[in-house]
Amino acid sequence: MDASHQDPISAGELAERFAASVVGDPSVRIARFASLACARPGEASFLSHSRYREQLVSTQASVVVVTDAVALQSLGLSCTFIQAEDPYLFFAKAASWLIQRDRIVAVPKTTVHASAVVDPSAVLGQRVRVGPGVVLAAGVRIGDDSDIGAGCIVGDGSQIGAGSQLHARVTIGPGCQIGSRAVIHSGAVIGSDGFGFALQPDRSWLKIPQVGGVVIGDDVEIGANTTVDRGTLDATVIEDGVKLDNQIQVAHNVVIGRHTAVAGCVGIAGSARIGAYCQIGGAAGILGHLEIAEATTIGPMSLVMSSITESGKYVGVYPLQQQADWEKSAAVVRRLPELRRQLQQGLRDQPQHGKKEG
Amino acid sequence: MDASHQDPISAGELAERFAASVVGDPSVRIARFASLACARPGEASFLSHSRYREQLVSTQASVVVVTDAVALQSLGLSCTFIQAEDPYLFFAKAASWLIQRDRIVAVPKTTVHASAVVDPSAVLGQRVRVGPGVVLAAGVRIGDDSDIGAGCIVGDGSQIGAGSQLHARVTIGPGCQIGSRAVIHSGAVIGSDGFGFALQPDRSWLKIPQVGGVVIGDDVEIGANTTVDRGTLDATVIEDGVKLDNQIQVAHNVVIGRHTAVAGCVGIAGSARIGAYCQIGGAAGILGHLEIAEATTIGPMSLVMSSITESGKYVGVYPLQQQADWEKSAAVVRRLPELRRQLQQGLRDQPQHGKKEG
Amino acid sequence: MDASHQDPISAGELAERFAASVVGDPSVRIARFASLACARPGEASFLSHSRYREQLVSTQASVVVVTDAVALQSLGLSCTFIQAEDPYLFFAKAASWLIQRDRIVAVPKTTVHASAVVDPSAVLGQRVRVGPGVVLAAGVRIGDDSDIGAGCIVGDGSQIGAGSQLHARVTIGPGCQIGSRAVIHSGAVIGSDGFGFALQPDRSWLKIPQVGGVVIGDDVEIGANTTVDRGTLDATVIEDGVKLDNQIQVAHNVVIGRHTAVAGCVGIAGSARIGAYCQIGGAAGILGHLEIAEATTIGPMSLVMSSITESGKYVGVYPLQQQADWEKSAAVVRRLPELRRQLQQGLRDQPQHGKKEG
Repeated sequence: MDASHQDPISAGELAERFAASVVGDPSVRIARFASLACARPGEASFLSHSRYREQLVSTQASVVVVTDAVALQSLGLSCTFIQAEDPYLFFAKAASWLIQRDRIVAVPKTTVHASAVVDPSAVLGQRVRVGPGVVLAAGVRIGDDSDIGAGCIVGDGSQIGAGSQLHARVTIGPGCQIGSRAVIHSGAVIGSDGFGFALQPDRSWLKIPQVGGVVIGDDVEIGANTTVDRGTLDATVIEDGVKLDNQIQVAHNVVIGRHTAVAGCVGIAGSARIGAYCQIGGAAGILGHLEIAEATTIGPMSLVMSSITESGKYVGVYPLQQQADWEKSAAVVRRLPELRRQLQQGLRDQPQHGKKEG
Repeated sequence: MDASHQDPISAGELAERFAASVVGDPSVRIARFASLACARPGEASFLSHSRYREQLVSTQASVVVVTDAVALQSLGLSCTFIQAEDPYLFFAKAASWLIQRDRIVAVPKTTVHASAVVDPSAVLGQRVRVGPGVVLAAGVRIGDDSDIGAGCIVGDGSQIGAGSQLHARVTIGPGCQIGSRAVIHSGAVIGSDGFGFALQPDRSWLKIPQVGGVVIGDDVEIGANTTVDRGTLDATVIEDGVKLDNQIQVAHNVVIGRHTAVAGCVGIAGSARIGAYCQIGGAAGILGHLEIAEATTIGPMSLVMSSITESGKYVGVYPLQQQADWEKSAAVVRRLPELRRQLQQGLRDQPQHGKKEG
Repeated sequence: MDASHQDPISAGELAERFAASVVGDPSVRIARFASLACARPGEASFLSHSRYREQLVSTQASVVVVTDAVALQSLGLSCTFIQAEDPYLFFAKAASWLIQRDRIVAVPKTTVHASAVVDPSAVLGQRVRVGPGVVLAAGVRIGDDSDIGAGCIVGDGSQIGAGSQLHARVTIGPGCQIGSRAVIHSGAVIGSDGFGFALQPDRSWLKIPQVGGVVIGDDVEIGANTTVDRGTLDATVIEDGVKLDNQIQVAHNVVIGRHTAVAGCVGIAGSARIGAYCQIGGAAGILGHLEIAEATTIGPMSLVMSSITESGKYVGVYPLQQQADWEKSAAVVRRLPELRRQLQQGLRDQPQHGKKEG
């Protein structure tokens, strides 16, 4: 995002690093990736689909990653090509590598902003950056090469693994463990109290203290303004490689299996156990105390009301209609049991098949 | 909210400024607006509907905006009336003007709180207020008369237009552009990473770097704890005059057309394009890579699963029922295809109409 | 969470305080509660259900709360038992008491962190803790024994009652009143503007100033990243004992009656009035300007579209199906009115019951 932090790399070096080849001038240097339409000189782009091919003519990118550089060279374009089997994958890997490399260049040793409040008992690894206004409480441990963005707050005794990035204004409560290479976006809250209350005889609620923690594995990404509650007694668990989008609610004692991806706005109620390799659609809901089998896909805005023991794709959403049509269909939905009775009554009362001509 | 910031204005001046007239004492001064029931002396209120007419008798408001001041004067009330064609509209305009005027009085020149962390390369316009604990990163630009509330964080190179108000604790990532007269509420996050991952052969996810920005037009309002992700390569775009309520998720590369209003808790998936002048109901969902025609209305909690090419009102929501009734209707919903088969089978097997008496 | 803050108590003292008895050594001391599986020496646990009984053999807890201590003693376990009628309730009360007691020990007098920004006109009670980076604006009042976590922001003139806990990074706008013993979790926003706009002739939106406040009673809990908008003119009201989970949106001028519990991700639109003692399921929606009767239960992900005058349990959610089955059922849902016409036509055309044999 900020050119001043970036150190250009030559097309030749970048291609070599990711097992691709150069057609054109390998000494051309680029600082970052952008789209064909937006890229400026000194930036790279890629052609992931032939439908964008005409953008090649007008792009200002200095380097474009393609699959068929030799054929394109005949067009007489001035850019250098990197030829790669999958240009999109090349972009994903090369751009990530550039961002990470620039970060390491920018933070050669552990740096704590003067406005940060770091408890003397907190332990920071090598090349950790602690941004302005950060609060690290007693006993916090931050692994090597981690970046704690402006305004982040980490509670007593919480741990964050190496190579993690907390964007600005992440809140982590006390007693949480987060693995290595975590990416946590702004506004996320890890370790808030679970929603636990017992109904008392006078119909008021007695708070059940929430004294468990949150245990998050390696390579987990957590979206902006997502919340993960601590367990009541044991931990809420998010396993390795899980990806959570924005605005998700993960309640106390939930377990999310490894490499499961959850789209935005999903709500997962207490003690639900979601298997590994699942994909949960946006704004879906998962009720508490149930299990979802490994490699299950849940459609968007669908509610899982009981355990799913068989992997598959599940959906439950009312179809969208013009309002006038919806009013009619919804009116019939309410009367479906009656409609079924009428139908079955009608079928019973009707002359038997084969006798009706008699 | 805080009387000390406010400088009373006379009923006469206020009426004149918004093309209304006074019946009663035009020298009475008011500092702000409140409801008829809550207003105290020195405050104004308004009568927007005759059903609140009896509150006139007991209100302590010094000034009341009405449509028929002369008729009301016969009631012998002690307050001054401002007579306006549409008292609610008068309130909206006059109260907004009072708030803005008080802000300008309070911040006659650019003021940065001692606890704020402002990069030397950041550029602030005239009469900008930067609150406590604010972080403005390298290359940030803030337009004239903008108010950056306590705890806001603005990332590298982001720009905010003139006359904008960031309430406390707004987070704006690097490389975002926000137009003039923006109102952004607390906890909003602009410019978090889009949710982009490619599935790898070992079933883990490869992060796709999100290097696009966010471009927000003029006169946009963004609600509390709403999130707007940055684009993957190009920008996520929110056009002029768009109003977003609280707790909304806008994914990467979404485009929201001008003057579209989106109610709370809506989720909009990646690359969806919503036309201008649309109204999206609360907690609705919009899937990715689809288009919604200009001036379309989507009902609350309804899911848009494919493009809408024809403007209109669309709804898709299961009707609410007593639980016992719902259990019966939902059981039939699952068996609807079977029910339809039975019906069509029954209709086929039945004596033909007109022949049944034969 | 942090052992250093905790002062162990003997099993005997704890049992006596909550009307239970000890079987075993009453001098054993414990610092906190944990699950049977996780508890370490110096911690207490409890047996709430016989299905966990085998965990008793391996637990390292020094004290276990049970219903039948004498019978269990015959197992020859080394831990001390506290015998209580309801071990879960004992845990809830005793653990809460321990947490509160530790807090008071840790903050014997009002303490303001050096990095906090407290307006000279703010008034703090006894034994108030103000954490790092907190901002308390003009005229703020904080009651005795309240804990204002790191990064909290409280706007002009807002009040917070005694014994309240604001976790890290809570935002409270100006002019809000919060009662005693509130618990507010990280990222919550109280007092953001309501979503009020009037459509203008040119199809743009005119902002309606939101100048009402928020009034929150005693013993209210508000979850992480939940938002409560201020009223337009009068206040948004949350009555005593209400419990709000995470990620909830409460719009302007909503009233939530006492001891109502609202699960995560619920959206409540403007001016809805929810009665006392209701239970609102996760991700449910409640439209604006309607009323819900006292002691009503709304199911998860169900939309309340009109007032509910009769207490009861209400649900409206499309049943989850395998995707292929859903596609078929949803296709029929769209055609339900037609299906009903066909059925009724079929029934009319069919020979009358009793005549068909004639």
